[in-house]
Amino acid sequence: MPSDRTTLIPALKNIATQLRIDSIRATSESGTGHPTSCMSMADIMAALFFAEMRFDPKDPKNPESDRFVLSKGHAAPILYAAWAESGAFDRSELLKVRDIHSDLEGHPTPRLPFVDVATGSLGQGICAAIGIALNARRIGSPYRTYVLLGDGESAEGSVWEAANVGAIDRLDNLCAITDVNGLGQSRATMWDHDLSQFERRWSAFGWRALVIDGHDLNAILGALDTARSTTGQPTMILARTIKGKGVASVEGKDGWHGKAFKKGDEMDRAIAELEQQFVPVPDGGANLASRIPKPAPSSRPVDAPKPVAAPAYTLGDQVATREAFGAAIVKLGDADPRVVALDADVKNSTFTDKFEKAHPDRFYQNFIAEQVMVGSAMGLAARGAIPFATTFACFLTRAADFVRMAAISNVGIKLAGSHAGVSIGEDGPSQMALEDLAMYRAEPNYTVLYPCDAVSAERLVALMAYQPGPAYMRTSRPKTPVIYSNDETFKIGGLKVLRESASDVATVIGAGVTVFEALKAYDRLREEHVPIRVIDLYSLAPIDRDALVAAARATGGNLITVEDHYAAGGIGDAVAEAVADEGFTVHRIAVGEIPRSGKPEELLERFGISAAHIVKAVKRLKLEVKG
Amino acid sequence: MPSDRTTLIPALKNIATQLRIDSIRATSESGTGHPTSCMSMADIMAALFFAEMRFDPKDPKNPESDRFVLSKGHAAPILYAAWAESGAFDRSELLKVRDIHSDLEGHPTPRLPFVDVATGSLGQGICAAIGIALNARRIGSPYRTYVLLGDGESAEGSVWEAANVGAIDRLDNLCAITDVNGLGQSRATMWDHDLSQFERRWSAFGWRALVIDGHDLNAILGALDTARSTTGQPTMILARTIKGKGVASVEGKDGWHGKAFKKGDEMDRAIAELEQQFVPVPDGGANLASRIPKPAPSSRPVDAPKPVAAPAYTLGDQVATREAFGAAIVKLGDADPRVVALDADVKNSTFTDKFEKAHPDRFYQNFIAEQVMVGSAMGLAARGAIPFATTFACFLTRAADFVRMAAISNVGIKLAGSHAGVSIGEDGPSQMALEDLAMYRAEPNYTVLYPCDAVSAERLVALMAYQPGPAYMRTSRPKTPVIYSNDETFKIGGLKVLRESASDVATVIGAGVTVFEALKAYDRLREEHVPIRVIDLYSLAPIDRDALVAAARATGGNLITVEDHYAAGGIGDAVAEAVADEGFTVHRIAVGEIPRSGKPEELLERFGISAAHIVKAVKRLKLEVKG
Repeated sequence: MPSDRTTLIPALKNIATQLRIDSIRATSESGTGHPTSCMSMADIMAALFFAEMRFDPKDPKNPESDRFVLSKGHAAPILYAAWAESGAFDRSELLKVRDIHSDLEGHPTPRLPFVDVATGSLGQGICAAIGIALNARRIGSPYRTYVLLGDGESAEGSVWEAANVGAIDRLDNLCAITDVNGLGQSRATMWDHDLSQFERRWSAFGWRALVIDGHDLNAILGALDTARSTTGQPTMILARTIKGKGVASVEGKDGWHGKAFKKGDEMDRAIAELEQQFVPVPDGGANLASRIPKPAPSSRPVDAPKPVAAPAYTLGDQVATREAFGAAIVKLGDADPRVVALDADVKNSTFTDKFEKAHPDRFYQNFIAEQVMVGSAMGLAARGAIPFATTFACFLTRAADFVRMAAISNVGIKLAGSHAGVSIGEDGPSQMALEDLAMYRAEPNYTVLYPCDAVSAERLVALMAYQPGPAYMRTSRPKTPVIYSNDETFKIGGLKVLRESASDVATVIGAGVTVFEALKAYDRLREEHVPIRVIDLYSLAPIDRDALVAAARATGGNLITVEDHYAAGGIGDAVAEAVADEGFTVHRIAVGEIPRSGKPEELLERFGISAAHIVKAVKRLKLEVKG
Repeated sequence: MPSDRTTLIPALKNIATQLRIDSIRATSESGTGHPTSCMSMADIMAALFFAEMRFDPKDPKNPESDRFVLSKGHAAPILYAAWAESGAFDRSELLKVRDIHSDLEGHPTPRLPFVDVATGSLGQGICAAIGIALNARRIGSPYRTYVLLGDGESAEGSVWEAANVGAIDRLDNLCAITDVNGLGQSRATMWDHDLSQFERRWSAFGWRALVIDGHDLNAILGALDTARSTTGQPTMILARTIKGKGVASVEGKDGWHGKAFKKGDEMDRAIAELEQQFVPVPDGGANLASRIPKPAPSSRPVDAPKPVAAPAYTLGDQVATREAFGAAIVKLGDADPRVVALDADVKNSTFTDKFEKAHPDRFYQNFIAEQVMVGSAMGLAARGAIPFATTFACFLTRAADFVRMAAISNVGIKLAGSHAGVSIGEDGPSQMALEDLAMYRAEPNYTVLYPCDAVSAERLVALMAYQPGPAYMRTSRPKTPVIYSNDETFKIGGLKVLRESASDVATVIGAGVTVFEALKAYDRLREEHVPIRVIDLYSLAPIDRDALVAAARATGGNLITVEDHYAAGGIGDAVAEAVADEGFTVHRIAVGEIPRSGKPEELLERFGISAAHIVKAVKRLKLEVKG
């Protein structure tokens, strides 16, 4: 790039003007969108893309490229305009923004090769950027990570979770910029243009905080220089800007958020005003796009996983699936350097402390901050890691909106939630996940697994690691007996028929702890000469529709599900949906009310999911059939 | 209380010792729990309950009482011990902590009259405390709100959302205390005993931050004095403490989180050590419990709502349900002073700006911080307000863990989520709620409503306001025609049959925007002489099981659901579960994949939930029936 700022600055200024014009054209063509949110950050984008970042517009996925995350996703048009300006694609594509036939969506998604994670839910991009920066450390790459936030966005708690983790992890390869234009969607932001409010928060959270005029290109370049030379802490550049900058009639005006200029006169006047702002560039101009520094082609060896030894449990031994999970990710981490683990200060309950001990450099502690844990996992996964993020299943709901955005990103995060259901016992309902299956099953692209013993837990961990897209594993607190031999095989979308005979009167389908209640019910009913089929439904999504239908056909259509989960959205609904088109219905046994503290076995009984309740349900169904 | 500190301090010290002993006994008896987390905060609890707060142990719900929220809910035993010490109940009850027959659960829940909201998911209590403090302002009461946090908890982003809102709202009637014992569950906390880390964060966020020795009763009382005399900002007392304080063998030791002393020798030694710490109190002691200052009996008039006028819409007019919602809460607010509204900077999209205009003193702006918005609503509801908290439905998922804890609290928050589904159009998937129904339906005690027109929206808003417990209303972005007359009546748990004849071949069940797709399908099929029944399922939970079964029976068992939501957890599952025991199955039409940007009508078509898809499904079912 031109080292002479007398050439560089006017050239960047012209690019900023062009990006403003492009943002207006794109949104006016669609008739929707956020042009004024783009205009405030145009100078920053020009500086970042054409005088700071090292990347190859034609190879955006290069693992050594600097990364840019647009945390304020509603400014998507200017992100697209910057990539078009860099030569990644033709500028004419910008007129298709928000069209159903274009991947240039209203908010950025990874349908576009230069987008790592979907943004548009505020406060998430900076969490992903933490993971992207950690990934550079993991692979030993000098790439830097840039993330641009809105000022309104800074009210999101997740931003401050990211602030803590970024500082604790001393991520000096991370540079954030806040576009402080002072206006939110519906009114002035919390702190308007009082930059000191931002400065003292970010300083207090341990970041290098730099306050600048966000329309002064010299100041922007200077701050980026300072960030690059800062060691031991991440940098936050706080840029004072004007929303709608460049078009006087909308500059700093409330009521212009998310509003396109009307195509025709209104748009034409705005663009004409901007065109007046092009400035002459000395020395015949500077084609900055052609001078973007490209990273060296990656010479990194491909990380091929080594083989993993089979499980080594003993049938009948008592092992909690949460503990088997912890042991399994250690083995996986031994075999594959891409495997990393993230914790939220419960590693001794989820047994990820085993992974920390084995692979301390690939273990990321987030303290009690589930949003940044999941967001960081999204960033890590987007850059090629295989991140297992784990806490109590109920506390993963803290990151539900991240779970949702990970679905939209279709990014390979591997979540594991321990302490599912009333079987945790005395800690009471606040620690019991009873709606987690509903949360993950609702998303159309999550793999949802729920092992009942140590062998299946270990096998399924290995499968979920290499299953494309996001995945969730539910584990349990109580110890359960090992029921599968070490050479048993499992598959995503499979199930196991644990008991069957030709004369079964019903099929009882459980998962996790309820598999053992079903087996107890089987034993009791057997004594009464009432044979039942028992299924371990360890894969909820995808689900083995054919096997369920076959079991229904073989057992008089009598399907009973039993789950340590509330009635809606869990195992019962999953099975019901799978068999509906064959005309079968499901009798659901589930937790029907808010539970309370007590001993695990007392709670299974009291909240209706114990063996006794299964026995009762089978007998009732049998009577109805007879009747 | 004794004004002479030479008497007061030793008396408080003895209470602190007693609370430590009680916490140990309670947890040892259960064999589970967090005694060391109680012991660090015993001196603070003694000072708060026996020298600071104004409350009546026998009438904990008195609306003029000072409030105490235990944000670090795992320290429940010492909360219970303090109330027992105050005379609220007999100390012997403490030995039943965590027993299935006792309401003294592992973490506090409002089954206990002195608990406003359930805690145990960290970072939520302080959000509820914001709402409780706002409520004092709403009713004009001098009561003060105290909230005690753990230091590990301070990593939760929701804490910093609360910090911002508390400062912006200048809540000087709110005093928070952080028990900085330096140890989390699995390791040292992020900042260990570096109190300056806390001090500079809270100061930066606009709070009066006071750093003290949390075992120095003079210092604690002094800080509480300072907090009480501070105006214009809330206070955060940062108390340096020792986890396990009082029992040398566990003081400041890692590995003792959530671990009870073993009953027998281990417990006896610990208690004996504590008993040595009782000190003589001059002047023959001081019965501090009997001197707790009680609030005056409330002379507040009961807030009786005035009658609300019927809706005044015109059949056929185009009105978005989100807009009707905004208008409805204004009318409700006119009639009932308990009605308040909370926003997260989208008031111009959710139309709560109408409420702000009409009732500015009962409108609480949280900026883009959904967790504190919902948490604050929980606090307001617990103190008698009727809080409507509103944002885009997809962004309410940000507060999913609060939604969960509100279920456990069974507290009357009224949530409304706008911009549901693909029908929002161009903004794309990040702004589309497609899993919200699954989230609320999973909880066993949420009322879930989904109106399709302005009249039903207004009527249902009024019903949800007075329905006990938590409730959710889903609203839509597009304008839809008014189809109900202004005198139409609705009920929680009801539905409307919009089209029917004796020869209907199938029942199509929609809600919200899909009601209109179903009506279009009806018209097209009618031209082809294929009559269908059309149902508006405006109440999803509870659901009108009988009416659905009747419709199934009347239409050959052919039930088709159609929803602007993913397939799992929504309308299809709700109907399927309702009719399952009668042997009916449901054919579900729902959004089956991650959607994208586009025009609303294009997206309904592309993602399979338009009238054309309904027509196709009806014809297929009909063929199958014939076949």
